[in-house]
Amino acid sequence: MTGVRHPLPIPQAPYLDGPILLRDGRPAYLRRARPDDFAAVQELLRRSSDTARFFRFFHGVAAGDPDAARRLIAPGNEQGGLSLVVTVGPKGQEQIVAVGSYSHTHRPDVAEVAFLVEDDYQGRGIGTLLLERLAMAALEQGLTALEAFVMGENTDMLHVFANSGFRVEQGPGPEGWYIQLPLVPTEAGVQQMEARDRIATRASLYPFFHPRAVAVIGASRDPASAGAQVLANLITSNFQGPVYPVNPKAPFVMSIPTYPSVLDIPGPVDLAVVAVPRAAVMDVARQCAQKGVRALIVLTAGFAETGSDGAEAQRQLVDLVRGSGMRMIGPNCLGLIHAHPDVRLNATFAATPVRPGNLAMSSQSGALGLAVLEYAQELGVGFSSFVSVGNKADVSGNDLLQWWEEDEHTKAILLYLESFGNPRRFARLARRVARRKPIIAVKSGRTAAGQRAAGSHTAALANDDAMVDALFRQSGVIRTRTLQEMFDVAALIAHQPLPKGNRVAILTNAGGPAILCADVCEAEGLSLPTLPADVQARLRALLPPAASTANPVDMIAGATAEDYRRCLEILLGSDACDAAIVICVPTRAAVVPEVAKAVAAARATQPDKPVVCCFMSAQPIAPPGQEPPIRPVYRFPESAAHALARAARYA
Amino acid sequence: MTGVRHPLPIPQAPYLDGPILLRDGRPAYLRRARPDDFAAVQELLRRSSDTARFFRFFHGVAAGDPDAARRLIAPGNEQGGLSLVVTVGPKGQEQIVAVGSYSHTHRPDVAEVAFLVEDDYQGRGIGTLLLERLAMAALEQGLTALEAFVMGENTDMLHVFANSGFRVEQGPGPEGWYIQLPLVPTEAGVQQMEARDRIATRASLYPFFHPRAVAVIGASRDPASAGAQVLANLITSNFQGPVYPVNPKAPFVMSIPTYPSVLDIPGPVDLAVVAVPRAAVMDVARQCAQKGVRALIVLTAGFAETGSDGAEAQRQLVDLVRGSGMRMIGPNCLGLIHAHPDVRLNATFAATPVRPGNLAMSSQSGALGLAVLEYAQELGVGFSSFVSVGNKADVSGNDLLQWWEEDEHTKAILLYLESFGNPRRFARLARRVARRKPIIAVKSGRTAAGQRAAGSHTAALANDDAMVDALFRQSGVIRTRTLQEMFDVAALIAHQPLPKGNRVAILTNAGGPAILCADVCEAEGLSLPTLPADVQARLRALLPPAASTANPVDMIAGATAEDYRRCLEILLGSDACDAAIVICVPTRAAVVPEVAKAVAAARATQPDKPVVCCFMSAQPIAPPGQEPPIRPVYRFPESAAHALARAARYA
Repeated sequence: MTGVRHPLPIPQAPYLDGPILLRDGRPAYLRRARPDDFAAVQELLRRSSDTARFFRFFHGVAAGDPDAARRLIAPGNEQGGLSLVVTVGPKGQEQIVAVGSYSHTHRPDVAEVAFLVEDDYQGRGIGTLLLERLAMAALEQGLTALEAFVMGENTDMLHVFANSGFRVEQGPGPEGWYIQLPLVPTEAGVQQMEARDRIATRASLYPFFHPRAVAVIGASRDPASAGAQVLANLITSNFQGPVYPVNPKAPFVMSIPTYPSVLDIPGPVDLAVVAVPRAAVMDVARQCAQKGVRALIVLTAGFAETGSDGAEAQRQLVDLVRGSGMRMIGPNCLGLIHAHPDVRLNATFAATPVRPGNLAMSSQSGALGLAVLEYAQELGVGFSSFVSVGNKADVSGNDLLQWWEEDEHTKAILLYLESFGNPRRFARLARRVARRKPIIAVKSGRTAAGQRAAGSHTAALANDDAMVDALFRQSGVIRTRTLQEMFDVAALIAHQPLPKGNRVAILTNAGGPAILCADVCEAEGLSLPTLPADVQARLRALLPPAASTANPVDMIAGATAEDYRRCLEILLGSDACDAAIVICVPTRAAVVPEVAKAVAAARATQPDKPVVCCFMSAQPIAPPGQEPPIRPVYRFPESAAHALARAARYA
Repeated sequence: MTGVRHPLPIPQAPYLDGPILLRDGRPAYLRRARPDDFAAVQELLRRSSDTARFFRFFHGVAAGDPDAARRLIAPGNEQGGLSLVVTVGPKGQEQIVAVGSYSHTHRPDVAEVAFLVEDDYQGRGIGTLLLERLAMAALEQGLTALEAFVMGENTDMLHVFANSGFRVEQGPGPEGWYIQLPLVPTEAGVQQMEARDRIATRASLYPFFHPRAVAVIGASRDPASAGAQVLANLITSNFQGPVYPVNPKAPFVMSIPTYPSVLDIPGPVDLAVVAVPRAAVMDVARQCAQKGVRALIVLTAGFAETGSDGAEAQRQLVDLVRGSGMRMIGPNCLGLIHAHPDVRLNATFAATPVRPGNLAMSSQSGALGLAVLEYAQELGVGFSSFVSVGNKADVSGNDLLQWWEEDEHTKAILLYLESFGNPRRFARLARRVARRKPIIAVKSGRTAAGQRAAGSHTAALANDDAMVDALFRQSGVIRTRTLQEMFDVAALIAHQPLPKGNRVAILTNAGGPAILCADVCEAEGLSLPTLPADVQARLRALLPPAASTANPVDMIAGATAEDYRRCLEILLGSDACDAAIVICVPTRAAVVPEVAKAVAAARATQPDKPVVCCFMSAQPIAPPGQEPPIRPVYRFPESAAHALARAARYA
């Protein structure tokens, strides 16, 4: 603090006006206080306890004191003070549940800050959030510090300041503590802001992934309808909780008794899947809010993707959802799968069963999602969860990234993106998440033609592709050109450790495929070191004279499964390589399931090195009904090399 | 002819020393005459008819006239004359069957040319070839013209000059005609040289593709042996002629009586497949020569691919083969398939049956060939023929290009190359062939690592990749990065016409895949024009309001097979596009086999425009046992767009 500053106007910043999430995941809204908030603030004062009012004003204040309400709303605004309110409830029926403000002191560069949070809403992070936003505004206004007077008994508020992320200077004050916060955010502070956002987001998404009970609203008797298919998937996937079909016209669907509306369901409902016609969606959402449903999946299409009328309907739906403390996936989506064996939730109308595994995927296209689930099933790639985000009107890919970041069952995250709702937030989140687990993305709308095509789809504004590339690169996201490549890389990451370096050994029984493989390795940044003399000597002792031991190691056509095992053990045991690619063109000597078993056995001796297989055949890797002993297995040597190169670049 | 030149030394050019092919496909050898040819030339004179000698010397020459023989060998060499001989027969037992020479005249820049071709070898292009080579040497020596005196009765020789490709000046001479050839090759001449090479090459390959009878030498009773598998493939593919197993140890193989050696086979044998141990190959080849076999396929490995000993063995084998008028595929190869229904020759040890079709493929890797045949079978891609060229010791990919150029059953040619034996010849041939049918190539050894890997493989010297790229581009060859892409493109070319322009319409029932498809189209040089208003109006009349008609045409999820048919008919009927990509994510409304049928029906209305399908599902395109109504069908939209872009770029 080197001198006295004159405050600038209060900024019109987006962080002073917009939806927020409370620590329990409920949505709320934060904005600047307005003169017409007067009545609502009087209500807040009336609902607040004496203690709360006392902590705020340091003396007894009557519940309806108009002067107190005025001071809360307009804390000396003429001198540049700022007051923020937090509201909950649907639009037009908002209640103000907290007020935070700063007003100027005798020192022009320091403001005094104070809060009132309704008793029922305390402990949900509102104080911390208000302090953060007020501090940001004060900083932009040119102030150098905030100060506060807090009673010693007001431990909650002392806690808020102590954990604010600012360096706090605290001393005895006239009626408790005098606290000063120099407005220099600390590294810890930035991390805390992010942590709070993450915790709140995760809490709000929890009911999607772990609902105690699910309602399917629009569960039709027509088995071809989306509602009927969702119901069938929920039942056949053995979801561990009650599933309630809602249908006002049919008394039962799939032999299960229905309820005329969600309100008629006896027990609590955490998640509702909405598959009613578009005209009925608003009413259904309203009923869900009334029922206390916390998570909506709206399959119904006809919203922002269809034009301005639909966009307006979508805005109203979002307002309703946020205003009533719910969150929503969709509209215009395929649904959500949480394949974890303890949950087994398939709330989609996809026809393919999903294998439980360690990949998470979010797809901005439902149809593509269907295709992707089927392809993954064929490849033997399993999912921890899959979310078709549709129009992303509320829950976004960014929200899901935060969910999966902390999900111990998710090893890697796949994204099919047509647009970024908030590229800066994506960049920040992805950089953080990608440090812990790989993110593999296909971003469409790369070209002008693709962007035009995207324009008519999920109402997404396609972004400039060079920017997207930079964004992915900076945040450590693995971008693949095609869906197929995405799965090639994902299958590798799902089943093998990441390579610790870029040196690869190729083991093969045929020269041609090894050349193609070596080409792609080198072109994509992997290296094929010539093997050390001792390693070559050990290989030569096992192999016929015509074999080649330099690298690729070509065992030639007579190689058996046992040759594969022994040679691969030698290669993996050597310090000269970080990973191995095993190529096999099936012969009478090299029978696919035997070679697969041999490769798996050799790999077990060095479990920290990835082993990538290419079996150039459609022959099954394992006998029918058995799981393959090793994964992934590619059909073409180029794919194997490509996938390993991507994984190595990420690692 | 502006002045008198002094002749330069005769060039040491490769075209003056090397194997040649006669017009009937038999190999022969051309080289400069040596003093020790004297006896052999005397033999030639002795074998020649009086007429032939008369035509050469213009007067009666005794059959054994030593002076005539000397003049033939050394036509005034002290003045820079040149004499070439053509030999046939195995090394060490060559016979000289023709002599051609020029000697200097009183004008230092003009030489006189004359030929003697043994009667039995006339009409096989030897005179034409000698004239061509003599003319090339004369040109390099700095001569400006050749002249000749030809008797009027010697119509064959007059014909040779008339069709020499040089502008011929002809006038009455002392004893018939005086002919002068100014040494400026005409365009027609270059084409004729090529045509002669093509005809000779085709004739020499004919016994591989249309053998009257096949011997399998080394047809073992061990069903795992290559010989047994070739025999089994020949029998089960229903080859239209006798197949003789040769095995000195077993009296029958696969219930078929064997012969101890190829010499014991009663009837003629055109093609012999050799699967004996390396040590026995030379003897077997010698016996084949003796038997009059014209084509050898040597499966046996252990030749140039294994080092210098093997390379020497290979050289000896090639000498024997060429010296005895045979041609050879291999060694170290998988064999040859000619799938044409009239022939049905599967002379490989590949396990996969091959579907007859219109693609030809040559592969420099046998193992890759196996994998490729299996993959093609899955894709429903059929072959006219397939040749695993192995070490390319005699028959090369270039020879096969000439075969397939004229093969009416071959629509496109696939090449897997590790090296070019003769890049300049490849460039010349490929440019010519690619004007008539597409050539799609994968060339490995792109990188240093790949080239090192290739070094240990089929003894091929890998070429610099930038040069390879340029060579492909200049000659109109479609180069793909991966084997899979090669088949994606090949399947399109095999089953659809080439697009007449680069404007594509995309028809889809899902937005996401259409965006990915549009991206690749634009990135690869196709254009997606916005459809004309009248076309859009006609589409809108058929589709729900939420559909998009600009391009891509997104019929949205409810689209039926009938919608596909009607919309595709409108698109193909419009002048605004040259090709269509049809994307279908299967739904209850869009059932794969029905959509496939509908697409085929719409396509039939405009058979000149290619229609490329992408069905994002593993569901079968047709009921079991039925052929799909349309091909190709890709799994991913990116592959469909890629393949079409490559085809359009070629077209």
